[in-house]
Amino acid sequence: MNSGEVYKSFLTPLSFIERSASVYPSKTAIVHGTKRYTYREFGERVNRFASALRQNGLAKGDRVAVLLPNIPPMLEAHFAVLLAGGMIVPINTRLSPGEVEYILNHSGASYLFCDTELSSMVKPHHANLPALKLTINVADAPGFETLPGIDYEEFLDHGSPAPLPWVIADEDESIAINYTSGTTGRPKGVVFSHRGAYLNAIGEGIETQLTPDSVYLWTLPMFHCNGWCFTWGVTAMGGTHVCLRKFEPGAVWPLVEKEKVTHFNGAPVVLISLLNDPSRPLKLTRPLTITTAGAPPSPTLIENVSAMGAKIIHVYGLTETYGPTTVCAPQPGWEGESPAERARLMARQGVAYVVSEAIRVVDEQMNDVPKDGQTLGEVVMTGNIVMKGYYDDPESTATAFRGGYFHSGDVAVWHPGGYIELRDRSKDVIISGGENISSIEVEQVIYRHPAVLECAVIGVPHEKWGESPKAFVTVKPGMALAEKELIEFCRANIAHFKCPSAIEFIDLPKTSTGKIQKFVLREREWKGREKFIQG
Amino acid sequence: MNSGEVYKSFLTPLSFIERSASVYPSKTAIVHGTKRYTYREFGERVNRFASALRQNGLAKGDRVAVLLPNIPPMLEAHFAVLLAGGMIVPINTRLSPGEVEYILNHSGASYLFCDTELSSMVKPHHANLPALKLTINVADAPGFETLPGIDYEEFLDHGSPAPLPWVIADEDESIAINYTSGTTGRPKGVVFSHRGAYLNAIGEGIETQLTPDSVYLWTLPMFHCNGWCFTWGVTAMGGTHVCLRKFEPGAVWPLVEKEKVTHFNGAPVVLISLLNDPSRPLKLTRPLTITTAGAPPSPTLIENVSAMGAKIIHVYGLTETYGPTTVCAPQPGWEGESPAERARLMARQGVAYVVSEAIRVVDEQMNDVPKDGQTLGEVVMTGNIVMKGYYDDPESTATAFRGGYFHSGDVAVWHPGGYIELRDRSKDVIISGGENISSIEVEQVIYRHPAVLECAVIGVPHEKWGESPKAFVTVKPGMALAEKELIEFCRANIAHFKCPSAIEFIDLPKTSTGKIQKFVLREREWKGREKFIQG
Repeated sequence: MNSGEVYKSFLTPLSFIERSASVYPSKTAIVHGTKRYTYREFGERVNRFASALRQNGLAKGDRVAVLLPNIPPMLEAHFAVLLAGGMIVPINTRLSPGEVEYILNHSGASYLFCDTELSSMVKPHHANLPALKLTINVADAPGFETLPGIDYEEFLDHGSPAPLPWVIADEDESIAINYTSGTTGRPKGVVFSHRGAYLNAIGEGIETQLTPDSVYLWTLPMFHCNGWCFTWGVTAMGGTHVCLRKFEPGAVWPLVEKEKVTHFNGAPVVLISLLNDPSRPLKLTRPLTITTAGAPPSPTLIENVSAMGAKIIHVYGLTETYGPTTVCAPQPGWEGESPAERARLMARQGVAYVVSEAIRVVDEQMNDVPKDGQTLGEVVMTGNIVMKGYYDDPESTATAFRGGYFHSGDVAVWHPGGYIELRDRSKDVIISGGENISSIEVEQVIYRHPAVLECAVIGVPHEKWGESPKAFVTVKPGMALAEKELIEFCRANIAHFKCPSAIEFIDLPKTSTGKIQKFVLREREWKGREKFIQG
Repeated sequence: MNSGEVYKSFLTPLSFIERSASVYPSKTAIVHGTKRYTYREFGERVNRFASALRQNGLAKGDRVAVLLPNIPPMLEAHFAVLLAGGMIVPINTRLSPGEVEYILNHSGASYLFCDTELSSMVKPHHANLPALKLTINVADAPGFETLPGIDYEEFLDHGSPAPLPWVIADEDESIAINYTSGTTGRPKGVVFSHRGAYLNAIGEGIETQLTPDSVYLWTLPMFHCNGWCFTWGVTAMGGTHVCLRKFEPGAVWPLVEKEKVTHFNGAPVVLISLLNDPSRPLKLTRPLTITTAGAPPSPTLIENVSAMGAKIIHVYGLTETYGPTTVCAPQPGWEGESPAERARLMARQGVAYVVSEAIRVVDEQMNDVPKDGQTLGEVVMTGNIVMKGYYDDPESTATAFRGGYFHSGDVAVWHPGGYIELRDRSKDVIISGGENISSIEVEQVIYRHPAVLECAVIGVPHEKWGESPKAFVTVKPGMALAEKELIEFCRANIAHFKCPSAIEFIDLPKTSTGKIQKFVLREREWKGREKFIQG
């Protein structure tokens, strides 16, 4: 609420910054290198930002694109754009200039906040963006070119630090468009509401146990699903944000120590790089909660993180579910299990968040699959923390919501205890001689080999069986591994028909968010054949 | 959501039991003496309870009264009544039969669940309750008389353990009526909604840091504001409820030890009795969070609880705000303060909950009073966790919400940092020679005297000043204290005009919820005079 306004009881992330700026004015809200902002300063900068947007003609519902690394202006934008009445459009900083152009045009962004280091991603088409009215350059790092426009700090100087009245008429109004990176096809714009963002931010706080004492390190890109809503969630609790302009494993551990970090998030590939970095501590001296999502973590990874003394929380979701929406909630009995068995259980994607309500695994007729840990089905969701739809794309929205539920495209089994476990993306299931093989199951076996750093398994053409599994493996630095040895290792651990028929040692291709791009491998193996169409 | 139903994304406490029964089927949900229910059993009993209510003709919106101590059926009722589509009407177990009759008739309860030990509270008028259709006797303790009706466990046997479809059309629908004990006048029925109860339950979880590992001991009566929504909140997190049929200080500490209790709540008078019990540990061996509300705790009490090793959380609210709605959130700088100064700061009622939004201290024209820590104003609230209104009482509702905010009747100052601190109930302010004296401020000084167990200060008639403060004091067992000594002690600590002109050593009169009844003292002192009218 804002003083002087008639009060409406909206669920909105705006209440988070308003409360924390009021309750914790002198507490550190944001750390960025040697720079520190208190919550009063954070709140005032948000107010300046929002009022400057309005002064510059922002109308309700206007799209405001942000092409920024994990720096304070990106956090500020997550509140200021909403406060002004606009919709934030965070852009993945690792996209190509053509993809950035597509998103700016598709969203029809009127304002663009661009880090000068990233200006070259916009420069080639900057003059050809018909909807764009104003570009604001964020000069966080020195020595880069600016785009025609004005400087961010000057822009803020035009605004007022005084509170602004909210312009919300309904808590279901749209506040953000997150374009999914999409391995094929054009990116789709996932639309969030005030209510959904509020509830998921609270939900992240509950599941990862954020408190006012939490110090959250930004290893996860904020452009990724609004930093899985932790931009809002950490602010809700009055915790401290520690920015990280550029993720490098060697930069993380010293910051964890220096800023007394209590929480960070990352995909399994990020955790693997952190665990293999020479700067990593063998044993942590303070509590640290690492939340992982984005791909199923191997039991080996979970075991290694736990051995270091960190608490690992495994969550699962998609951009379409505001980020994580299930958690592998530990059961009382798990404490007594061996570390390996516990890690195997912790690798499950788990159960619905307290705030998420309805997650199911269904067959093609939308019937629940049996909870037998074996039958494959698709994960579908509905509830408050499922997107409103894809921006300006009613067809894709209707397809995604067929049968009344959002279809994740993820294939899973449902365990007897109600925990789901991903087996694959629909398109990653390998069908060999009529048998379904989960590529993830094969990958998890390969990860147990001590010489393996990373791997990906796909189906490749096979004369007799149609498809057979092939593994692509990166070996740990300084270690050696032979194809035959690894195949033998697999045969000792899973059914022979599931074992790779071939292994190739390579550097794995990855998306801009660090996900392994199986479609690149598949494209190569299936060149000119039908399977590629599914890519 | 319920399988087979079209999904609606309602915020409702029903999602909490549904999720926890599904996620934690084999985890202990409820402990009651030697009896233990898992979350599966808890969920099934709720389903039986709800379906039996429907079989017995419950129609949407019917009122279901519960006159029960802190035992499993009371927790079950908090979900089953809502699931059936009814409204729960918890009745204070310490009322007089006449008051119980009033509440049963005013709410028009169709069903009554009554503990046999409490049947004498209903018996005199049981035949004269026109709306009552069915009485269900809960025989938790042996040897008491039943009312005409049926047995609770038999009643459950008629129901089905299978999930029931929800009958919610709107999350703002009413789910509970909590009659306030009210020191004067007839009790008023405070009406709660699904949405408000959901959000406050989540809010209690956030502010007191409940997790799935929490073990919550029911020292607080569940009839008191739905156990301040912890009936729903502990269930939301999948924590364990430890029942306590009868609060006795000597029963609490052994249970804390035996069940590894992590949290309990209680008014300051309850904490005083616990701290003065011979069974109390000098130092706790495990973390324990004690949340206190219901009256301002004295700094002395806060200091003593902290010295024992418990974490104290001071919250404030009213039945009309679903229980607590402000928290004295600790600031980073407070750690460095002396224990006495920290306790003084912790005695403030604090700031709005993350989920509560709008709390103000206003003058009679609804303007904010200055945040100077001195100017008295009334605490007013609005937002999601303010009641819908008083049941069947539009006049009282309109009065309470004049100016668009709920008027608490509590007088407070607003400190420069935004923390509110109660100075009095409106009617408890002492006006002496034109000066306002906060009775609480005088009480807090008296509590600092080591021989004082409890005290209450009121204004009594005074020839010259109109009123002057008088203190009523209970001395700790085995200690002695003279009137003169205590007045001297006060004069050494506060302005002389605020010091009691007289002190009387007595056992203090209390309400059924343990609040000191100043109006009883006032009635005696002002007999036949005008002040009594305000009582």
